[in-house]
Amino acid sequence: MPALPLPVEVDAFLRQPNPAVVASLRRDGSPHTAATWYLWDGERALLNMDESRLRLRFMRRDPRVALTALGDDEWYRHASLLGRVDELVEDEGLHDIDRLARHYTGSAFSNRRASRFSAWVKPEFWHAWEGAHPWPR
Amino acid sequence: MPALPLPVEVDAFLRQPNPAVVASLRRDGSPHTAATWYLWDGERALLNMDESRLRLRFMRRDPRVALTALGDDEWYRHASLLGRVDELVEDEGLHDIDRLARHYTGSAFSNRRASRFSAWVKPEFWHAWEGAHPWPR
Repeated sequence: MPALPLPVEVDAFLRQPNPAVVASLRRDGSPHTAATWYLWDGERALLNMDESRLRLRFMRRDPRVALTALGDDEWYRHASLLGRVDELVEDEGLHDIDRLARHYTGSAFSNRRASRFSAWVKPEFWHAWEGAHPWPR
Repeated sequence: MPALPLPVEVDAFLRQPNPAVVASLRRDGSPHTAATWYLWDGERALLNMDESRLRLRFMRRDPRVALTALGDDEWYRHASLLGRVDELVEDEGLHDIDRLARHYTGSAFSNRRASRFSAWVKPEFWHAWEGAHPWPR
């Protein structure tokens, strides 16, 4: 798998509000996956979780994660980032989840009493596909 | 996370041709994710990979995997299965990838010279969400 930096096409793709799934590691080392919002800033991917989420505990214990974003058009195009959470902080004021909610829905996050945490994922490797072929060609 | 069996709503959801992502484990134990087709038969999820795919090697080495399927409607609803590959066999005659391709595209798989392998995932746990809430309520 290639290391960073990303090709410009993949970088541009990841900046869109794509459906995505994040994998983290359970205590026994087995993988856990869940749907997630993410925001790619060109260097790191911002994730944000309610304090009750299992994967928040998993990331605290082992920061290694992987993220796959799916495109439109029958998700013919997709891109993945493999790396680790290099910063995990409380989202005081809900600024981060608001950024994510605006990115995906156009509006601020609705639950203003939520207690949430932000995880910044620094990728080490990536892979991207277009149908059966690596992308970009 | 609940053990199987799945609630009927989640079982029915998983039988649809949803966009999905599978996580497997790299040699160093870190997670790897990729978009995937799957077919849920009520007991196991069929995955199918070209022989060149990294995750095929990962699953041979460590069968623990996780799968998240995303619904329509801004993937408000999603469901995940955590378990292990309990059968990994060559897809001779491409019968399995044809089943998957028909499920997702309505047509048989186009590349008739492909060498492909089928992985049957037996889930041990599941979780499903509808927006910010566990699903079904």
